[in-house]
This record gives sequence, C-alpha cells and structure tokens, in this order.
Amino acid sequence: MAIKLVTTAAELRAESARLLAEKKGSSQGLVPTMGALHAGHANLARTAVEQNDVVVATIFVNPLQFGDAVDLDRYPRTLDADMALLDAEGVDLVFAPSVEEVYPLGEPMVRVTAGAMGNTWEGASRPGHFDGALTVVSKLLHYGLPGGASPDGSTAAYRAYFGQKDAQQLALVKRMVSDLNFPVQIVAVPTVRDDDGLALSSRNRFLSGDEREAALVLSRALRLIEQRAQAHEPLDLDSAVALVESQPLVQLDYFDVVDPRTLEPLAENCKETPFRGEGLAIIAAKVGPVRLIDNVPLDS
Amino acid sequence: MAIKLVTTAAELRAESARLLAEKKGSSQGLVPTMGALHAGHANLARTAVEQNDVVVATIFVNPLQFGDAVDLDRYPRTLDADMALLDAEGVDLVFAPSVEEVYPLGEPMVRVTAGAMGNTWEGASRPGHFDGALTVVSKLLHYGLPGGASPDGSTAAYRAYFGQKDAQQLALVKRMVSDLNFPVQIVAVPTVRDDDGLALSSRNRFLSGDEREAALVLSRALRLIEQRAQAHEPLDLDSAVALVESQPLVQLDYFDVVDPRTLEPLAENCKETPFRGEGLAIIAAKVGPVRLIDNVPLDS
Repeated sequence: MAIKLVTTAAELRAESARLLAEKKGSSQGLVPTMGALHAGHANLARTAVEQNDVVVATIFVNPLQFGDAVDLDRYPRTLDADMALLDAEGVDLVFAPSVEEVYPLGEPMVRVTAGAMGNTWEGASRPGHFDGALTVVSKLLHYGLPGGASPDGSTAAYRAYFGQKDAQQLALVKRMVSDLNFPVQIVAVPTVRDDDGLALSSRNRFLSGDEREAALVLSRALRLIEQRAQAHEPLDLDSAVALVESQPLVQLDYFDVVDPRTLEPLAENCKETPFRGEGLAIIAAKVGPVRLIDNVPLDS
Repeated sequence: MAIKLVTTAAELRAESARLLAEKKGSSQGLVPTMGALHAGHANLARTAVEQNDVVVATIFVNPLQFGDAVDLDRYPRTLDADMALLDAEGVDLVFAPSVEEVYPLGEPMVRVTAGAMGNTWEGASRPGHFDGALTVVSKLLHYGLPGGASPDGSTAAYRAYFGQKDAQQLALVKRMVSDLNFPVQIVAVPTVRDDDGLALSSRNRFLSGDEREAALVLSRALRLIEQRAQAHEPLDLDSAVALVESQPLVQLDYFDVVDPRTLEPLAENCKETPFRGEGLAIIAAKVGPVRLIDNVPLDS
C-alpha cells in the first residue's frame, strides 16, 4: 500500500509538509471519519482525491459525541479494511490518533457548542451529541491544516469533506466554519445508496434481513417528496408519513421539510401548495433496534 | 505612518501574504486588542515586533463579551491614537473590522464555551463574558493566520500575544488553544505598571484622584504576597485582605492564590506554611465606580 499511517499531530503535520513539497502540491483535502468505512466514505475520499493534491483521512471514534459507553464500545473498529479502502481511492495519509493524543488533559474544558441548531432533530434524542461532534471537528480541522505552502509561497488551499447523509452535522459544521472563521472550505458530498435505495451507514450491518427490507420505506418516502417537489406539486407530508407508518417494523421519529442551512421547518404553506425553491426532506426512524436517518435535498 | 489599516478578513489575508513575501518573513505575530491602547498594549506590540517578521494588531470592541449595552457604548474608541501608538512600535498592519464584518449573520449560533474555568473569579460577576471572549478570540486567531509561507515553503510560525494582566483570559485562551488544537503559540506578556505600582488598564481613566490613590492598595497587597513567596514565608492572605479592607474607597471582591493554569485555589496549607512552588495571586475590587483587577505570578 502507498498510503501511510500516522498517529500523532506532529507526524501528521510533518508528513503533510513533505507530501506537499514532494508533489509540488497547492491544495490539501481532509476526510474526517470514525472508521468502519463503506462505499459512502469511499465516495468522500474519491471526491477529495479528485480535487486536491494531498489528501488526509482521519479515523477517530470520538468518545465525546457518544451518549453512553455501550454505544461507544460497540462502534465497529476495522482499521486494516479502512486503510485498504482509502488506499484504493488514492488517499495519501491516514491520521488515526489515540484518545490520549486527542485529549491529553482528559475531557476538554473549553468546547464548541452548537447552540439551538444542535438541539433539534438528531440533537433532540442525543443531548450533547453535536457539541461533542463540533468540538472534535474543530480539533480535526486544525490538525489537518496543510503543513506546507503552494510552490508560489502562498498558503495551500484547504478543503474538508462531509457527507450529505449526516445533514444536521453538515449544516452545523458549515455554520461553525462561518461563525468561527475556520480557514477551510467545507465540501458536501452526496449520499451513496444501495441499489434498492437504502442510504449507506455503518449501522446498516446491525439490521436483520426483515428489518433491512422494512428500512427501505425511509428512502421511498423521501423519494416521493422529491418527485412531488420536482413536479412542483404540494409535498403532502401526511401521505408520506402514512406510508412510513404502514410498516410495522419501523417506528418513525421525525419526518419534515426544513431549510437546509438553519434546519428550521419550512412554513406549512410550502408543504401544502405547489413546491418551488430549496428545502431538505429529513427523516429518522428506529428499525428494529437500529436508529436510521436519511434525507434528500430539494431544489426545484 | 508606515502602518496600514485594513477592515476586511480578505484584505488582512492578502496584506499578510504580501508582507511575508516582501520581507522574506518566516513568522507572524498577532496582537488582539479592543483599542483604547495604553503602554501595556505598547509592550505587547513591542514584544511581538521583537519576535516576528510581520505583526498584525486587531482592534475590535466585541459586543459578545459585554453584559450590558451601556458598558459597551461607553467603552472608549480612540482609533487615530491607537494607530499612532502601534505604528511607533513597528506594527505592520491593523485589522479593525466592523461588527458586520465579524458577525455577518448576527449573533453566532456556534460558539466556544469556557466551561467551569469561565464561571469563577471574573466570570462569577460577568456571566457569559468568557464564552463571548473565547468565541471572538477563536475568530481573531483564524483571521490572523499567516497568509503566506516561509521562504523555504514551510508554514510561517504563528504567535499571538496576550497580557498577563487579564490572567483568567490568558489561562482560558491557552486552554482553548490546547483543547481545540489551534495552530498558534500563545505568548504571555508581563503587566505594565505606573511608577506607583497601579497596573495599566483602559478603565483607570474613570478613576478620580482620590480613587486612583486608594486603588494603589491592590498592587501593594499583591506585592506583599509576592515578597512573602520570595522569602518562602507563609503567604498569610488574611493580613493582606485586611490591608485592602482598611481602605474605605475600595470594595474587595476576591483575593486568592490559585494555580495559574486551572485557576483553582491552592490548598490552604500552601498559604499557611512557608510557600514554595508556582502560584498566581489574584485580586479584584471596586474602587469608586470602577472594577479593577490585578495579579502577580508567584514562582519560588
């Protein structure tokens, strides 16, 4: 494998500088992950490799964003397979630090807080989750800064890649970068789906055969909303909700159409009159023991 | 004047790159201020100029860290005098953005929070103050990143300068840089005092003659503690407190000896037995209508 593994921030910075110099590169891409990589992550990595001279992926299961220790413990760790996948996509460098490297003083005292945008939707059922996620993303964005310059002496371009699948995380990371002026461009990468429409997720592996079949109702309901938006019809959420609720293995948590930047629900009349404009249809449900989320951007 | 004024983040970055290239510089220093500059700030600027090829000072009165609008309104604005002072010290660039440039979306949604270290001492009487201060400092540290590289193509060194006078702010900024991995070295600059011992502060201008005279008891009490520490005597805080309280124009808020990193009070036995080690004696008091703070580092 050409890909290289580093585990400390100092090595990461030195390797980034070396690679930028060696390639006479003028841009660096960062792909933050928690490992357990699938084709959705491969798509993130591929996009980053297409757009940057040097690409760094990070693999870190962040204790700060897990509500309970059991969930953290059972989160899959598959480093060898992850390295092979990233290598195949042309990623140069993997940064897989220990918890001690990332939190040398224990839990951080100073943190990033998501504010009101972090308390809705996923945040409503996972208190503190987005504060923990943004805190570690702020660290990763700093770790991943280009360690060297462009050949002309200007600072190298810096981009970080996040999946559209985690729509609330994406919106919050964009908002953090804007609110705190991080020197990075956030690139959103479309959700990858299986042939039957199920959005890829590291949690899908916990679904039984029946549950997996039942879970398809999420993407079907979203697709219904998307088709109505494209046809400039009323979105008629109620009928889509009824479709989801017709599936006994699926327990719906939320299903709504929101502003993609603020995550605030669009006004009711946007859903009841012919739809034009921008929106994001979001859904979350428990399928058997597994909580799944999915979304489709609307633009018509 | 050789110094140049910029008001947008884009101009700041371009000018930083131009200056680093022009000077073949390999380091940039940032001096964040709220303006109303005095000899204490001049000392910050001088230290930064000694240690860096390019120096940027920022002048921004941050609405986010003021509890009430009256205090914000009456905070002195003296841009022309500030520019002259910074020019005399050899600062290259002043970044003085508008509130709209810094907060284009209004109040930030995503913020930095100081945690427990922000609720004690100054934080106890100014709720939210350090969250607001850290949020704007995180923005300023990003704005002030070197816009170009060292002549060898490595990233330019980056240092930011904070006064020891605001000991809690300094400790929290250091902690933020560590907890969130900001790519900057924080340099603490010693407090500048008038000949009579009064620590310089932009608030001193609000003291009457009698109040200014009374205010000297703060630095005298700290000096007493410092002398005892140097002599490895018990610090005997009570007698120093009594000295402060003997002054009728002075209303003591707190006076303690703390760990300079965590701001937690040192154990009582460190104050009652001969003192050896590191500490920070901190004091806050109202003198007439003006709240003053001061501190001395102890190391013996």
